[in-house]
Amino acid sequence: MPLMTAGEIEALMREVFPAMPEDLYHIEEVADHYVRIRMPYRDDFLRPGGTLSGPSLMTLVDTAMYYAVLAMIGPEALAVTTNLNINFMRRPQPVDVIAECRLLKLGSRLAVGDVAIYSDGSPDMVAHATCTYSIPPRERGAAN
Amino acid sequence: MPLMTAGEIEALMREVFPAMPEDLYHIEEVADHYVRIRMPYRDDFLRPGGTLSGPSLMTLVDTAMYYAVLAMIGPEALAVTTNLNINFMRRPQPVDVIAECRLLKLGSRLAVGDVAIYSDGSPDMVAHATCTYSIPPRERGAAN
Amino acid sequence: MPLMTAGEIEALMREVFPAMPEDLYHIEEVADHYVRIRMPYRDDFLRPGGTLSGPSLMTLVDTAMYYAVLAMIGPEALAVTTNLNINFMRRPQPVDVIAECRLLKLGSRLAVGDVAIYSDGSPDMVAHATCTYSIPPRERGAAN
Amino acid sequence: MPLMTAGEIEALMREVFPAMPEDLYHIEEVADHYVRIRMPYRDDFLRPGGTLSGPSLMTLVDTAMYYAVLAMIGPEALAVTTNLNINFMRRPQPVDVIAECRLLKLGSRLAVGDVAIYSDGSPDMVAHATCTYSIPPRERGAAN
Repeated sequence: MPLMTAGEIEALMREVFPAMPEDLYHIEEVADHYVRIRMPYRDDFLRPGGTLSGPSLMTLVDTAMYYAVLAMIGPEALAVTTNLNINFMRRPQPVDVIAECRLLKLGSRLAVGDVAIYSDGSPDMVAHATCTYSIPPRERGAAN
Repeated sequence: MPLMTAGEIEALMREVFPAMPEDLYHIEEVADHYVRIRMPYRDDFLRPGGTLSGPSLMTLVDTAMYYAVLAMIGPEALAVTTNLNINFMRRPQPVDVIAECRLLKLGSRLAVGDVAIYSDGSPDMVAHATCTYSIPPRERGAAN
Repeated sequence: MPLMTAGEIEALMREVFPAMPEDLYHIEEVADHYVRIRMPYRDDFLRPGGTLSGPSLMTLVDTAMYYAVLAMIGPEALAVTTNLNINFMRRPQPVDVIAECRLLKLGSRLAVGDVAIYSDGSPDMVAHATCTYSIPPRERGAAN
Repeated sequence: MPLMTAGEIEALMREVFPAMPEDLYHIEEVADHYVRIRMPYRDDFLRPGGTLSGPSLMTLVDTAMYYAVLAMIGPEALAVTTNLNINFMRRPQPVDVIAECRLLKLGSRLAVGDVAIYSDGSPDMVAHATCTYSIPPRERGAAN
């Protein structure tokens, strides 16, 4: 089960990334091997044609995966992305975006998850990603 | 809904790939945007350590995706793989392997799906893949 | 050979993305199926530990690929990313970052390229990505 | 520099995989962080339309990467594939296939490489892949 709540993850992010806009992401649910986050719509994500930029979705994927790993292994973790693969399937609408991350594996050295991205209110997946994080060896004497 | 049944896909494969062993794969279910196939255990998939080879799983992924596309667009299709990404997460046991393919997008030019692979009888995912197929333009005069 | 020069691509970007900081990327070379761009160091890319963020590198990859496709097919193109796969291999240093994009295939419907990312002044690759763009059908009557 | 020669790798493969056809692959060059192998043409790789099967190319990619890792870290290694991403770009001709693997990173825990695949005698890349291997911790007291 998760070691951190949504509120604890958001507080940690504010502490570690003080320059990150506070309202950039909102964690909607943290559950066993699962996190769902919302990226509220912002005009500066827009691209010509009224769609959201690919990089804003890739950043969302990486964040969802990071939160899912943090939730399960706790705040002392210095996990880093080693691989991210994303398929863009439909044009995201200019509305909030929802990311659902599911951890498929949480090993001692690698965590693998997939992330499904939806436009708020629409059942069709906008993008789908898989992501691998490397989990560094814990210090001897660390709590776990 | 699917245009082909499991039996029709298996008959097409026997016709088009007469050299493929008949019992290599067994289609267990064809549904809307979904196919599940079983790869019965064979000694020649084994690698040292008693695990199944990575290439046998990649071939299974590609086959599951091909069947899922065929089922939805029909036998005249000459779809070809353009991208395949696979994460190997756990050692597959020397038992039957199950692949579940879900089509996430079925456009006029590209189909995208993901494939979850399990050892028969175990709930943990052995491998997870995403796959893109390019669907060639239909001949003028074709039904769709 | 390229249809657009570095200056023409940068002018197009200023026109189409007026909100993008002008000094975010600098195109250093445009050649046949090849683009090299520099991302000057900015404090806001920094993450704790003195490294550059993964999303800033993914954005750089997507941009390098977009410029490489634009250079070869011209400004009327509305190409969109369909797949991006990136491996993060070494911590990028807090210095300028260089991206070299090479188009491996430029078909009528899909373009595939790879992007190598280096910290300025260091020979070791920081990250490596592959990227696919979908090229929409041209209007009838278009020049090519 | 490599710890194993082409002949030593081929001998190890014959010992560990006695069922593998001896003439399936031929190592043409082993160099620093680099291996080039040839897959001689075989009728059973053919698919309808006279092209080689995707799985035969994915197996070739995985093999080239395995040989490149083995060459650099030596025969005691039990490295396993954790991620493989491949883009199929052109139809391979019914001739020998050449795979060039370049190790982009060789860390203590992960090795990352890319593999370029060509039809013999043609300069255009048929497929391009990236591959990650996990390198297990060495036993204490091991030679290296």
